[in-house]
Amino acid sequence: MTYCLGILLARGLVLASDSRTNAGIDQIARVIKLNLMPPAADRVIAIQSAGNLGTTQAVVTSLKEAFGSGDKANDVSTARTMFEVAGIVGARLREITARDAKFVEQYGDPSGSFLVSGQIAGEPARLFQIYSAGNFVEASARSPFLQIGETKYGKPILDRRLTPDMGFDEAAKLALLSFDATARSNLSVGPPIDLLLYRTDSFSTEHLVTVEEDDAYWEALRQGYSEGLAALVASLPSPPVTWLP
Amino acid sequence: MTYCLGILLARGLVLASDSRTNAGIDQIARVIKLNLMPPAADRVIAIQSAGNLGTTQAVVTSLKEAFGSGDKANDVSTARTMFEVAGIVGARLREITARDAKFVEQYGDPSGSFLVSGQIAGEPARLFQIYSAGNFVEASARSPFLQIGETKYGKPILDRRLTPDMGFDEAAKLALLSFDATARSNLSVGPPIDLLLYRTDSFSTEHLVTVEEDDAYWEALRQGYSEGLAALVASLPSPPVTWLP
Repeated sequence: MTYCLGILLARGLVLASDSRTNAGIDQIARVIKLNLMPPAADRVIAIQSAGNLGTTQAVVTSLKEAFGSGDKANDVSTARTMFEVAGIVGARLREITARDAKFVEQYGDPSGSFLVSGQIAGEPARLFQIYSAGNFVEASARSPFLQIGETKYGKPILDRRLTPDMGFDEAAKLALLSFDATARSNLSVGPPIDLLLYRTDSFSTEHLVTVEEDDAYWEALRQGYSEGLAALVASLPSPPVTWLP
Repeated sequence: MTYCLGILLARGLVLASDSRTNAGIDQIARVIKLNLMPPAADRVIAIQSAGNLGTTQAVVTSLKEAFGSGDKANDVSTARTMFEVAGIVGARLREITARDAKFVEQYGDPSGSFLVSGQIAGEPARLFQIYSAGNFVEASARSPFLQIGETKYGKPILDRRLTPDMGFDEAAKLALLSFDATARSNLSVGPPIDLLLYRTDSFSTEHLVTVEEDDAYWEALRQGYSEGLAALVASLPSPPVTWLP
Protein backbone atom coordinates (compact mmCIF):
# COMPACT_ATOMS: atom_id res chain seq x y z
CA MET A 1 0.00 0.00 0.00
CA THR A 2 0.97 3.62 -0.40
CA TYR A 3 0.30 6.94 1.23
CA CYS A 4 1.35 10.19 -0.44
CA LEU A 5 0.49 13.63 0.86
CA GLY A 6 0.97 17.06 -0.67
CA ILE A 7 0.38 20.29 1.24
CA LEU A 8 0.21 23.71 -0.38
CA LEU A 9 1.29 26.40 2.05
CA ALA A 10 1.40 30.12 1.45
CA ARG A 11 5.20 29.83 1.72
CA GLY A 12 5.72 26.65 -0.31
CA LEU A 13 5.12 22.92 -0.38
CA VAL A 14 5.33 20.02 2.05
CA LEU A 15 5.44 16.65 0.29
CA ALA A 16 5.59 13.26 2.00
CA SER A 17 5.51 9.72 0.62
CA ASP A 18 6.05 6.35 2.21
CA SER A 19 8.31 3.98 0.33
CA ARG A 20 6.96 0.50 0.94
CA THR A 21 5.71 -1.64 -1.88
CA ASN A 22 4.07 -4.96 -1.41
CA ALA A 23 4.54 -6.73 -4.70
CA GLY A 24 4.00 -10.22 -3.33
CA ILE A 25 2.96 -12.01 -0.17
CA ASP A 26 6.44 -12.38 1.21
CA GLN A 27 8.27 -9.33 -0.01
CA ILE A 28 7.93 -5.77 1.18
CA ALA A 29 10.43 -3.78 -0.83
CA ARG A 30 11.40 -0.13 -0.76
CA VAL A 31 10.83 2.10 -3.75
CA ILE A 32 10.88 5.82 -4.39
CA LYS A 33 7.37 7.25 -4.59
CA LEU A 34 8.49 10.86 -4.32
CA ASN A 35 10.24 11.46 -7.62
CA LEU A 36 12.03 14.63 -8.65
CA MET A 37 12.49 15.67 -12.25
CA PRO A 38 16.11 16.54 -13.12
CA PRO A 39 17.39 19.83 -11.67
CA ALA A 40 16.84 23.02 -13.64
CA ALA A 41 17.36 26.68 -12.75
CA ASP A 42 13.80 27.79 -13.49
CA ARG A 43 11.75 24.91 -12.13
CA VAL A 44 11.28 22.24 -9.49
CA ILE A 45 8.89 19.42 -10.34
CA ALA A 46 7.97 16.57 -8.01
CA ILE A 47 5.79 13.58 -8.91
CA GLN A 48 4.44 11.38 -6.12
CA SER A 49 2.89 8.12 -7.20
CA ALA A 50 0.39 5.51 -6.00
CA GLY A 51 -1.04 2.40 -7.62
CA ASN A 52 0.46 -0.14 -9.99
CA LEU A 53 4.22 0.23 -9.78
CA GLY A 54 4.78 -0.81 -13.38
CA THR A 55 2.37 1.87 -14.58
CA THR A 56 3.66 4.66 -12.35
CA GLN A 57 7.33 3.90 -12.96
CA ALA A 58 6.71 3.85 -16.72
CA VAL A 59 5.15 7.31 -16.51
CA VAL A 60 7.81 8.83 -14.25
CA THR A 61 10.83 7.25 -15.93
CA SER A 62 9.71 8.17 -19.44
CA LEU A 63 9.14 11.77 -18.33
CA LYS A 64 12.57 11.88 -16.70
CA GLU A 65 14.16 10.54 -19.88
CA ALA A 66 12.23 13.05 -22.00
CA PHE A 67 13.36 15.94 -19.75
CA GLY A 68 15.26 18.41 -21.92
CA SER A 69 14.74 16.30 -25.06
CA GLY A 70 12.60 18.87 -26.83
CA ASP A 71 9.87 16.24 -27.34
CA LYS A 72 7.07 18.73 -26.71
CA ALA A 73 4.43 16.15 -25.74
CA ASN A 74 6.56 14.67 -22.93
CA ASP A 75 9.18 17.26 -22.03
CA VAL A 76 8.23 18.98 -18.79
CA SER A 77 11.46 21.04 -18.92
CA THR A 78 9.82 23.38 -21.44
CA ALA A 79 6.29 23.44 -20.03
CA ARG A 80 5.29 27.03 -19.33
CA THR A 81 3.10 26.32 -16.30
CA MET A 82 2.56 23.59 -13.71
CA PHE A 83 -0.93 23.22 -15.20
CA GLU A 84 0.76 22.18 -18.44
CA VAL A 85 2.99 19.75 -16.51
CA ALA A 86 -0.09 18.18 -14.89
CA GLY A 87 -1.61 17.79 -18.33
CA ILE A 88 1.53 16.08 -19.66
CA VAL A 89 1.57 13.63 -16.72
CA GLY A 90 -2.14 12.87 -17.22
CA ALA A 91 -1.66 12.30 -20.96
CA ARG A 92 1.36 10.04 -20.35
CA LEU A 93 -0.65 8.06 -17.81
CA ARG A 94 -3.43 7.57 -20.37
CA GLU A 95 -0.95 6.35 -22.99
CA ILE A 96 0.76 3.89 -20.65
CA THR A 97 -2.57 2.61 -19.37
CA ALA A 98 -3.94 2.19 -22.89
CA ARG A 99 -0.83 0.25 -23.88
CA ASP A 100 -0.49 -2.00 -20.79
CA ALA A 101 -3.91 -2.37 -19.13
CA LYS A 102 -5.18 -5.31 -21.20
CA PHE A 103 -2.06 -7.32 -20.35
CA VAL A 104 -1.93 -6.37 -16.69
CA GLU A 105 -5.60 -6.66 -15.72
CA GLN A 106 -5.54 -10.45 -15.44
CA TYR A 107 -2.94 -10.13 -12.69
CA GLY A 108 -4.20 -7.06 -10.86
CA ASP A 109 -5.25 -3.44 -11.06
CA PRO A 110 -3.14 -1.59 -13.68
CA SER A 111 -4.22 1.90 -12.61
CA GLY A 112 -2.05 4.59 -11.07
CA SER A 113 -2.45 8.10 -9.75
CA PHE A 114 -0.13 11.01 -8.95
CA LEU A 115 0.44 14.18 -7.04
CA VAL A 116 2.27 16.63 -9.29
CA SER A 117 3.70 19.71 -7.66
CA GLY A 118 6.45 22.26 -7.80
CA GLN A 119 7.12 25.67 -9.21
CA ILE A 120 8.02 27.14 -12.58
CA ALA A 121 9.58 30.61 -12.51
CA GLY A 122 6.90 33.28 -12.94
CA GLU A 123 4.26 31.25 -11.13
CA PRO A 124 3.65 30.46 -7.46
CA ALA A 125 4.17 26.89 -6.23
CA ARG A 126 1.26 24.67 -7.28
CA LEU A 127 -0.05 21.22 -6.43
CA PHE A 128 -2.22 18.91 -8.54
CA GLN A 129 -3.76 15.47 -8.13
CA ILE A 130 -3.86 13.34 -11.29
CA TYR A 131 -6.59 10.72 -11.21
CA SER A 132 -6.29 7.28 -12.79
CA ALA A 133 -8.41 8.64 -15.65
CA GLY A 134 -5.71 11.20 -16.45
CA ASN A 135 -7.80 14.21 -15.46
CA PHE A 136 -6.76 16.32 -12.50
CA VAL A 137 -7.62 18.86 -9.81
CA GLU A 138 -5.56 21.58 -8.15
CA ALA A 139 -5.06 22.39 -4.48
CA SER A 140 -5.87 25.90 -3.24
CA ALA A 141 -6.02 27.85 0.01
CA ARG A 142 -9.50 26.37 0.51
CA SER A 143 -8.28 22.81 -0.12
CA PRO A 144 -4.65 23.05 0.96
CA PHE A 145 -3.82 19.34 0.90
CA LEU A 146 -4.23 16.44 -1.51
CA GLN A 147 -3.69 12.74 -0.86
CA ILE A 148 -3.36 9.54 -2.88
CA GLY A 149 -3.25 5.89 -1.84
CA GLU A 150 -4.40 4.98 1.67
CA THR A 151 -5.80 8.44 2.38
CA LYS A 152 -8.49 8.19 5.05
CA TYR A 153 -6.73 7.23 8.27
CA GLY A 154 -4.46 10.26 8.02
CA LYS A 155 -7.10 12.77 6.97
CA PRO A 156 -8.80 13.72 10.30
CA ILE A 157 -5.67 15.26 11.86
CA LEU A 158 -5.18 17.37 8.72
CA ASP A 159 -8.85 18.36 8.56
CA ARG A 160 -8.64 19.47 12.17
CA ARG A 161 -5.40 21.39 12.25
CA LEU A 162 -3.90 22.21 8.85
CA THR A 163 -4.09 25.79 7.57
CA PRO A 164 -2.26 27.20 4.54
CA ASP A 165 -0.66 30.02 6.53
CA MET A 166 1.26 27.60 8.77
CA GLY A 167 5.02 27.49 8.96
CA PHE A 168 7.00 24.56 7.58
CA ASP A 169 7.69 23.26 11.07
CA GLU A 170 4.01 22.96 12.03
CA ALA A 171 2.97 21.60 8.63
CA ALA A 172 5.76 19.00 8.60
CA LYS A 173 4.74 17.93 12.10
CA LEU A 174 1.14 17.45 10.96
CA ALA A 175 2.26 15.60 7.84
CA LEU A 176 4.22 13.12 9.96
CA LEU A 177 1.34 12.74 12.44
CA SER A 178 -0.90 11.97 9.47
CA PHE A 179 1.57 9.25 8.43
CA ASP A 180 1.69 7.93 11.98
CA ALA A 181 -2.11 7.55 12.06
CA THR A 182 -2.00 5.75 8.70
CA ALA A 183 0.84 3.46 9.68
CA ARG A 184 -0.88 2.45 12.91
CA SER A 185 -4.13 1.53 11.13
CA ASN A 186 -2.60 0.00 7.97
CA LEU A 187 0.49 -2.10 8.52
CA SER A 188 1.52 -1.88 4.86
CA VAL A 189 2.17 1.87 5.14
CA GLY A 190 5.19 2.97 7.16
CA PRO A 191 8.66 4.48 7.23
CA PRO A 192 10.94 5.24 5.52
CA ILE A 193 9.05 8.42 4.65
CA ASP A 194 10.48 10.78 2.06
CA LEU A 195 9.75 14.35 3.15
CA LEU A 196 10.44 17.37 0.97
CA LEU A 197 10.03 20.92 2.25
CA TYR A 198 10.11 23.38 -0.62
CA ARG A 199 10.20 27.13 -0.06
CA THR A 200 8.64 29.18 -2.88
CA ASP A 201 11.22 30.84 -5.17
CA SER A 202 14.09 28.79 -3.75
CA PHE A 203 14.10 26.42 -6.77
CA SER A 204 15.95 24.04 -4.50
CA THR A 205 15.20 20.48 -3.39
CA GLU A 206 17.93 20.36 -0.79
CA HIS A 207 15.44 19.99 2.05
CA LEU A 208 14.53 16.42 1.18
CA VAL A 209 14.96 14.03 4.08
CA THR A 210 14.26 10.34 4.46
CA VAL A 211 12.66 9.63 7.82
CA GLU A 212 13.61 6.11 8.90
CA GLU A 213 11.76 4.00 11.46
CA ASP A 214 14.42 4.72 14.10
CA ASP A 215 14.76 8.44 13.33
CA ALA A 216 15.02 10.28 16.65
CA TYR A 217 12.53 13.01 15.72
CA TRP A 218 9.98 10.54 14.32
CA GLU A 219 10.21 8.48 17.51
CA ALA A 220 9.88 11.52 19.77
CA LEU A 221 6.95 12.87 17.78
CA ARG A 222 5.04 9.59 17.79
CA GLN A 223 5.67 8.94 21.45
CA GLY A 224 4.78 12.48 22.47
CA TYR A 225 1.58 12.34 20.47
CA SER A 226 0.59 8.93 21.77
CA GLU A 227 1.17 9.86 25.41
CA GLY A 228 -0.42 13.28 24.99
CA LEU A 229 -3.48 11.77 23.36
CA ALA A 230 -3.88 9.26 26.17
CA ALA A 231 -3.77 12.09 28.71
CA LEU A 232 -6.15 14.20 26.61
CA VAL A 233 -8.77 11.45 26.28
CA ALA A 234 -8.50 10.70 30.00
CA SER A 235 -9.03 14.39 30.78
CA LEU A 236 -12.24 14.69 28.76
CA PRO A 237 -15.54 14.48 30.61
CA SER A 238 -17.22 11.09 31.00
CA PRO A 239 -20.69 10.56 29.55
CA PRO A 240 -23.66 11.48 31.78
CA VAL A 241 -24.18 8.80 34.45
CA THR A 242 -27.72 8.24 33.20
CA TRP A 243 -26.23 6.90 29.96
CA LEU A 244 -24.20 4.23 31.74
CA PRO A 245 -25.43 0.74 32.62
CA MET B 1 -23.21 7.51 4.06
CA THR B 2 -23.19 5.48 7.23
CA TYR B 3 -20.91 4.73 10.11
CA CYS B 4 -21.68 1.92 12.55
CA LEU B 5 -19.36 0.79 15.32
CA GLY B 6 -19.54 -2.18 17.67
CA ILE B 7 -17.20 -2.62 20.64
CA LEU B 8 -16.89 -5.84 22.61
CA LEU B 9 -15.82 -5.11 26.16
CA ALA B 10 -15.15 -7.61 28.93
CA ARG B 11 -18.20 -6.15 30.65
CA GLY B 12 -20.55 -5.87 27.67
CA LEU B 13 -21.15 -4.03 24.42
CA VAL B 14 -20.95 -0.45 23.17
CA LEU B 15 -22.86 0.06 19.92
CA ALA B 16 -23.11 3.31 17.98
CA SER B 17 -24.71 4.17 14.64
CA ASP B 18 -25.31 7.41 12.86
CA SER B 19 -28.77 7.90 11.39
CA ARG B 20 -28.34 9.91 8.24
CA THR B 21 -29.31 8.56 4.88
CA ASN B 22 -28.62 10.30 1.65
CA ALA B 23 -31.10 8.84 -0.78
CA GLY B 24 -30.90 11.69 -3.27
CA ILE B 25 -28.95 14.84 -3.93
CA ASP B 26 -31.30 17.11 -2.02
CA GLN B 27 -32.57 14.97 0.81
CA ILE B 28 -30.77 13.85 3.88
CA ALA B 29 -33.26 11.87 5.90
CA ARG B 30 -33.01 10.18 9.28
CA VAL B 31 -33.38 6.45 9.62
CA ILE B 32 -32.70 3.89 12.33
CA LYS B 33 -29.50 1.95 11.66
CA LEU B 34 -29.27 0.48 15.14
CA ASN B 35 -32.16 -1.95 15.24
CA LEU B 36 -33.25 -4.02 18.22
CA MET B 37 -35.10 -7.29 17.90
CA PRO B 38 -38.28 -7.45 20.03
CA PRO B 39 -37.68 -7.77 23.80
CA ALA B 40 -37.28 -11.24 25.31
CA ALA B 41 -36.25 -12.43 28.76
CA ASP B 42 -33.36 -14.60 27.60
CA ARG B 43 -31.80 -12.51 24.84
CA VAL B 44 -30.89 -9.09 23.51
CA ILE B 45 -30.15 -8.88 19.79
CA ALA B 46 -29.04 -5.72 17.97
CA ILE B 47 -28.54 -5.38 14.22
CA GLN B 48 -26.67 -2.35 12.88
CA SER B 49 -26.84 -1.83 9.14
CA ALA B 50 -24.95 -0.15 6.32
CA GLY B 51 -25.43 -0.09 2.58
CA ASN B 52 -28.55 -0.14 0.41
CA LEU B 53 -31.43 0.89 2.63
CA GLY B 54 -33.96 -1.23 0.74
CA THR B 55 -31.81 -4.31 1.21
CA THR B 56 -30.98 -3.74 4.86
CA GLN B 57 -34.54 -2.79 5.86
CA ALA B 58 -35.88 -5.88 4.08
CA VAL B 59 -33.51 -8.07 6.12
CA VAL B 60 -34.16 -6.38 9.46
CA THR B 61 -37.93 -5.99 9.08
CA SER B 62 -38.47 -9.57 7.92
CA LEU B 63 -36.44 -10.85 10.89
CA LYS B 64 -38.45 -8.67 13.28
CA GLU B 65 -41.68 -9.99 11.81
CA ALA B 66 -40.42 -13.58 12.04
CA PHE B 67 -39.43 -13.10 15.71
CA GLY B 68 -41.38 -15.65 17.76
CA SER B 69 -43.07 -17.09 14.66
CA GLY B 70 -41.44 -20.50 14.96
CA ASP B 71 -40.20 -20.22 11.37
CA LYS B 72 -36.88 -21.88 12.17
CA ALA B 73 -34.96 -20.42 9.21
CA ASN B 74 -35.74 -16.80 10.16
CA ASP B 75 -36.73 -16.78 13.83
CA VAL B 76 -33.88 -15.45 15.93
CA SER B 77 -36.00 -15.81 19.09
CA THR B 78 -35.23 -19.54 19.16
CA ALA B 79 -31.62 -19.45 18.01
CA ARG B 80 -29.43 -21.15 20.60
CA THR B 81 -26.35 -19.00 20.09
CA MET B 82 -25.40 -15.60 18.66
CA PHE B 83 -23.35 -17.52 16.09
CA GLU B 84 -26.64 -19.03 14.89
CA VAL B 85 -28.22 -15.54 14.81
CA ALA B 86 -25.33 -14.26 12.68
CA GLY B 87 -25.87 -17.18 10.31
CA ILE B 88 -29.59 -16.38 10.02
CA VAL B 89 -28.88 -12.71 9.22
CA GLY B 90 -26.29 -13.73 6.62
CA ALA B 91 -28.67 -16.21 4.99
CA ARG B 92 -31.51 -13.66 4.94
CA LEU B 93 -29.16 -11.10 3.35
CA ARG B 94 -28.26 -13.63 0.63
CA GLU B 95 -31.94 -14.33 -0.08
CA ILE B 96 -32.90 -10.65 -0.30
CA THR B 97 -29.88 -9.85 -2.45
CA ALA B 98 -30.57 -12.77 -4.80
CA ARG B 99 -34.17 -11.60 -5.15
CA ASP B 100 -33.58 -7.85 -5.58
CA ALA B 101 -30.07 -7.28 -6.93
CA LYS B 102 -30.85 -7.63 -10.64
CA PHE B 103 -33.59 -4.99 -10.37
CA VAL B 104 -31.62 -2.60 -8.18
CA GLU B 105 -28.21 -2.71 -9.86
CA GLN B 106 -29.18 -0.37 -12.70
CA TYR B 107 -29.89 2.35 -10.11
CA GLY B 108 -27.06 1.72 -7.65
CA ASP B 109 -25.30 -0.73 -5.40
CA PRO B 110 -27.80 -3.21 -3.89
CA SER B 111 -25.40 -4.61 -1.28
CA GLY B 112 -25.68 -4.29 2.48
CA SER B 113 -23.70 -5.31 5.55
CA PHE B 114 -24.40 -5.64 9.26
CA LEU B 115 -23.04 -5.74 12.76
CA VAL B 116 -24.97 -8.36 14.73
CA SER B 117 -24.47 -8.37 18.46
CA GLY B 118 -26.07 -9.11 21.78
CA GLN B 119 -26.37 -11.92 24.25
CA ILE B 120 -28.34 -15.15 24.57
CA ALA B 121 -28.60 -16.58 28.08
CA GLY B 122 -25.85 -19.14 28.70
CA GLU B 123 -23.36 -17.31 26.48
CA PRO B 124 -21.28 -14.17 26.94
CA ALA B 125 -22.12 -11.08 24.87
CA ARG B 126 -20.88 -11.51 21.30
CA LEU B 127 -20.35 -9.28 18.27
CA PHE B 128 -20.25 -10.26 14.58
CA GLN B 129 -19.75 -8.48 11.28
CA ILE B 130 -21.82 -9.82 8.38
CA TYR B 131 -20.26 -9.06 5.00
CA SER B 132 -22.26 -8.32 1.85
CA ALA B 133 -21.53 -11.90 0.78
CA GLY B 134 -23.42 -13.19 3.85
CA ASN B 135 -20.36 -14.67 5.54
CA PHE B 136 -19.18 -13.23 8.82
CA VAL B 137 -16.43 -12.74 11.39
CA GLU B 138 -16.55 -12.37 15.17
CA ALA B 139 -14.94 -9.81 17.45
CA SER B 140 -12.66 -11.00 20.26
CA ALA B 141 -10.40 -9.55 22.93
CA ARG B 142 -7.70 -9.32 20.24
CA SER B 143 -10.04 -7.50 17.82
CA PRO B 144 -12.41 -5.78 20.20
CA PHE B 145 -14.17 -3.55 17.69
CA LEU B 146 -15.84 -3.94 14.31
CA GLN B 147 -17.01 -1.23 11.91
CA ILE B 148 -19.18 -0.96 8.81
CA GLY B 149 -19.79 1.91 6.38
CA GLU B 150 -17.37 4.84 6.41
CA THR B 151 -14.90 3.10 8.71
CA LYS B 152 -11.45 4.54 8.17
CA TYR B 153 -11.58 8.10 9.51
CA GLY B 154 -12.72 6.87 12.91
CA LYS B 155 -10.34 3.93 13.20
CA PRO B 156 -7.05 5.56 14.34
CA ILE B 157 -8.41 6.81 17.67
CA LEU B 158 -9.76 3.31 18.40
CA ASP B 159 -6.54 1.59 17.30
CA ARG B 160 -4.63 3.88 19.62
CA ARG B 161 -6.71 3.80 22.77
CA LEU B 162 -9.39 1.10 22.90
CA THR B 163 -8.84 -1.93 25.12
CA PRO B 164 -11.44 -4.58 25.97
CA ASP B 165 -10.98 -4.14 29.72
CA MET B 166 -12.15 -0.51 29.62
CA GLY B 167 -15.18 0.76 31.47
CA PHE B 168 -18.33 1.85 29.65
CA ASP B 169 -17.54 5.51 30.26
CA GLU B 170 -14.13 5.40 28.56
CA ALA B 171 -15.32 3.18 25.72
CA ALA B 172 -18.38 5.37 25.04
CA LYS B 173 -16.13 8.44 25.01
CA LEU B 174 -13.84 6.79 22.43
CA ALA B 175 -16.82 5.68 20.36
CA LEU B 176 -18.10 9.27 20.18
CA LEU B 177 -14.61 10.62 19.39
CA SER B 178 -14.44 8.08 16.57
CA PHE B 179 -17.75 9.46 15.27
CA ASP B 180 -16.48 13.01 15.61
CA ALA B 181 -13.42 12.21 13.47
CA THR B 182 -15.66 10.60 10.86
CA ALA B 183 -18.17 13.44 10.83
CA ARG B 184 -15.43 16.05 10.39
CA SER B 185 -13.92 14.23 7.40
CA ASN B 186 -17.15 13.04 5.76
CA LEU B 187 -20.02 15.51 5.86
CA SER B 188 -22.62 12.82 5.18
CA VAL B 189 -21.96 11.13 8.53
CA GLY B 190 -23.14 12.95 11.64
CA PRO B 191 -25.53 13.14 14.56
CA PRO B 192 -28.03 12.01 15.65
CA ILE B 193 -26.02 9.04 16.88
CA ASP B 194 -27.80 6.10 18.47
CA LEU B 195 -25.67 4.78 21.32
CA LEU B 196 -26.44 1.58 23.22
CA LEU B 197 -24.46 0.52 26.25
CA TYR B 198 -25.24 -3.08 27.16
CA ARG B 199 -23.98 -4.68 30.35
CA THR B 200 -23.51 -8.46 30.11
CA ASP B 201 -26.28 -10.46 31.85
CA SER B 202 -28.54 -7.42 32.19
CA PHE B 203 -30.70 -8.47 29.20
CA SER B 204 -31.78 -4.85 29.10
CA THR B 205 -31.62 -2.24 26.36
CA GLU B 206 -32.63 0.64 28.61
CA HIS B 207 -29.29 2.39 28.13
CA LEU B 208 -29.98 3.42 24.56
CA VAL B 209 -29.60 7.16 23.99
CA THR B 210 -29.85 9.29 20.90
CA VAL B 211 -27.09 11.88 20.82
CA GLU B 212 -28.33 14.93 18.94
CA GLU B 213 -26.16 17.59 17.31
CA ASP B 214 -26.81 19.99 20.20
CA ASP B 215 -26.42 17.43 22.97
CA ALA B 216 -24.48 19.11 25.80
CA TYR B 217 -22.14 16.17 26.36
CA TRP B 218 -21.41 15.72 22.64
CA GLU B 219 -20.62 19.42 22.34
CA ALA B 220 -18.38 19.45 25.42
CA LEU B 221 -16.56 16.31 24.28
CA ARG B 222 -15.91 17.59 20.75
CA GLN B 223 -14.82 21.00 21.92
CA GLY B 224 -12.58 19.61 24.65
CA TYR B 225 -10.97 17.21 22.21
CA SER B 226 -10.47 19.83 19.54
CA GLU B 227 -8.89 22.34 21.91
CA GLY B 228 -6.83 19.69 23.65
CA LEU B 229 -5.54 18.38 20.33
CA ALA B 230 -4.52 21.85 19.21
CA ALA B 231 -2.57 22.30 22.45
CA LEU B 232 -1.05 18.84 22.15
CA VAL B 233 0.16 19.35 18.57
CA ALA B 234 1.58 22.75 19.50
CA SER B 235 3.43 21.19 22.44
CA LEU B 236 5.16 18.52 20.34
CA PRO B 237 8.74 19.15 19.24
CA SER B 238 9.37 20.84 15.90
CA PRO B 239 11.36 19.02 13.23
CA PRO B 240 15.16 19.42 13.33
CA VAL B 241 16.14 22.84 11.98
CA THR B 242 18.29 21.17 9.32
CA TRP B 243 15.10 19.79 7.79
CA LEU B 244 13.56 23.24 7.36
CA PRO B 245 14.05 25.49 4.33
